[in-house]
Amino acid sequence: MSQPAGQHTVRQHNRALVLRQVADAPRQSRAQLALATGLTRATVSGLVDELLVAELLAELSPDRGSRGRPGSPLILNANGPAGLGVEVNVDYISACVLDLTGQIRARQTELVDNRLTTPAAGVDRAIRLAQRVRADAEADGLTVVGASIGVAGLVDSVGVLRRAPNLPGWQSVDLGGAFGDAMRLPVTVDNEANLAALAQLWFGESPQPRDFVLVSGEIGVGAGVVLDGQLYRGVHGHAGELGHVVVDPAGPSCGCGANGCLEQVAGQEAMLVKAGVVAERGVISTGLAAPDGAVAELHRRAAAGDARTRQALGDAGTALGIAIAGFINVVDVPVVLLGGLYARLGEWLVAPISAELDRRVVSREWAPVEVGVSGLGSDACVRGAAATVINALIESG
Amino acid sequence: MSQPAGQHTVRQHNRALVLRQVADAPRQSRAQLALATGLTRATVSGLVDELLVAELLAELSPDRGSRGRPGSPLILNANGPAGLGVEVNVDYISACVLDLTGQIRARQTELVDNRLTTPAAGVDRAIRLAQRVRADAEADGLTVVGASIGVAGLVDSVGVLRRAPNLPGWQSVDLGGAFGDAMRLPVTVDNEANLAALAQLWFGESPQPRDFVLVSGEIGVGAGVVLDGQLYRGVHGHAGELGHVVVDPAGPSCGCGANGCLEQVAGQEAMLVKAGVVAERGVISTGLAAPDGAVAELHRRAAAGDARTRQALGDAGTALGIAIAGFINVVDVPVVLLGGLYARLGEWLVAPISAELDRRVVSREWAPVEVGVSGLGSDACVRGAAATVINALIESG
Repeated sequence: MSQPAGQHTVRQHNRALVLRQVADAPRQSRAQLALATGLTRATVSGLVDELLVAELLAELSPDRGSRGRPGSPLILNANGPAGLGVEVNVDYISACVLDLTGQIRARQTELVDNRLTTPAAGVDRAIRLAQRVRADAEADGLTVVGASIGVAGLVDSVGVLRRAPNLPGWQSVDLGGAFGDAMRLPVTVDNEANLAALAQLWFGESPQPRDFVLVSGEIGVGAGVVLDGQLYRGVHGHAGELGHVVVDPAGPSCGCGANGCLEQVAGQEAMLVKAGVVAERGVISTGLAAPDGAVAELHRRAAAGDARTRQALGDAGTALGIAIAGFINVVDVPVVLLGGLYARLGEWLVAPISAELDRRVVSREWAPVEVGVSGLGSDACVRGAAATVINALIESG
Repeated sequence: MSQPAGQHTVRQHNRALVLRQVADAPRQSRAQLALATGLTRATVSGLVDELLVAELLAELSPDRGSRGRPGSPLILNANGPAGLGVEVNVDYISACVLDLTGQIRARQTELVDNRLTTPAAGVDRAIRLAQRVRADAEADGLTVVGASIGVAGLVDSVGVLRRAPNLPGWQSVDLGGAFGDAMRLPVTVDNEANLAALAQLWFGESPQPRDFVLVSGEIGVGAGVVLDGQLYRGVHGHAGELGHVVVDPAGPSCGCGANGCLEQVAGQEAMLVKAGVVAERGVISTGLAAPDGAVAELHRRAAAGDARTRQALGDAGTALGIAIAGFINVVDVPVVLLGGLYARLGEWLVAPISAELDRRVVSREWAPVEVGVSGLGSDACVRGAAATVINALIESG
């Protein structure tokens, strides 16, 4: 006979409470957990035993330094269940595994140009990368229990990539189904900027603000909006498409079907062409993931003071500032963080962005906007993806 | 001796529950209210007696048509406490009183040009208007218990107008203090587009969506954003400043200090000048509130098919569409409603706005955006303002 539903729910709730408590403050004893949660010591002990068996918690040897009867400090098990994060972007794919404590335990990135592949071939390659990274983590003693896929496009609620403006052939691609079938794991799919913003919220340097927009630049430009410590997704889950805000109504045409969109003026390829680093758009592996690629060259030229490069970055910063000012005027968030490519080029982008915000944000005089650079680098999306698996595991107890 | 705090809070909570129940479904008896709320009949009877004494509820004569012992149907008291709403806009001021049932019981609008007055004189005039409307309502047997002021500018959390881009001298104007002192009432202050959006949520035609943006045009352009049935205010309360989203980086300078803002391209004065109805900006009482003003002439010319007017409205619609598409790409709401001046001109604005959304919203293919016209007219802000007073009264029990 199974337990009544109510009992089961209460027990699961309390397991999650204990697990979250250990995640937030490791090395507590059972007695300390009982105090912190308000549960009885007997209840806590039973739950902890279950969590040890499930390999979600681990026990350290008793702390002899404390007074009275020593309790065994409890920590999240860094060698138990783990989360797999995958990123499918325009010019690279990436995967990583995080253990329960949030440490990266395996990671690989591969330069590709998904504009030149069919969705089936591109997804297959990403699955193979993910399987290699999973195998690395499992060889290290971890058990991958779920995966989350970040993709540079718009995703529906059942894990289907509806549209990726920078990957013209990739429409209605069932990423959730493909990864789930191949890897035999529960899989969720989200926009890459959303996952990067979650990574920022969870792993950003202290003091990490709870209201911010993370503007991620790669070939496409996306934004993840966090309000009061929660990702803001919008009614259909498509919020944050900052790359398709118009900054120049007479500007160049965009893969989304419109023209003058921010990413056509301030995206990676627009900057590279304008700086003269590449002659035209669509060059393979130019991006942030390529250590000796065109973005590295752009950075070198900017650092060396090359006038054309500095002008290209200044223009991109101005366009970004116009779009971000509009965003802040309608959404009213106090912090802008630059991610991905924009973080790497932040030295030359923050000033022109700030100048536009100082001109254009109507509440600027008494509600100034802070513009900063994310420290997470190009790992943000995969880390955020893997961490959603971990967090869901902890929340469900 | 006063009651313990806990008891007091519970009683107030239950009073509010009963009052909200009557507001949502009038003409229930005490017995029906007990069933609906889960409270005992004795508790409900006690609370109803208090609410009758406070004149929040009224009792109709017993309904003889029903079986068993007849109960007296209860309704909100339409002749008891009332809410005062005031709007201070650029070229008109307006006030109205709503009774508890949400009916307008007194209303006046006055054409002014607040650009030509000092804040002190402008506020004084608005207070005098509000006092006349209050006197009308009180002569009708109502008791005004609070006021809410809507203003075409950015308001802080303590009722100070920080800045009104279309009223250059109006900075740091303590509207809450001025109205509160003069009228001896509790006063709240909010942005006029926010209050108009609340009016739309509460009084809009059924089926009223619970996720929408109301784009209000007058001399300035503002937006009220409603997400899941709640007004979205942003971190500092300044969300929805759509009028200052850039639609033309090379466009005309704006009162906010920037240039190319939507309201300089698609606001009332831009349309009037472009259509040739007025020769230049800044004419007194041109607006929606003036029945024989320039906006009425604009409407006549558009209806008569005047090519220059139609072109001016088409251009304004395109600019609005560009700004709204950007808004939807970042905030992801499915419904746009046009308010104020834009509602009156909706016949010629909806098509060019929709055309831009069809080109520019990246999720358009599977998440289409509906563009409609608010039926509330130019009363939306004052009705929303007065209704916030009423709603606060009902919520507090």
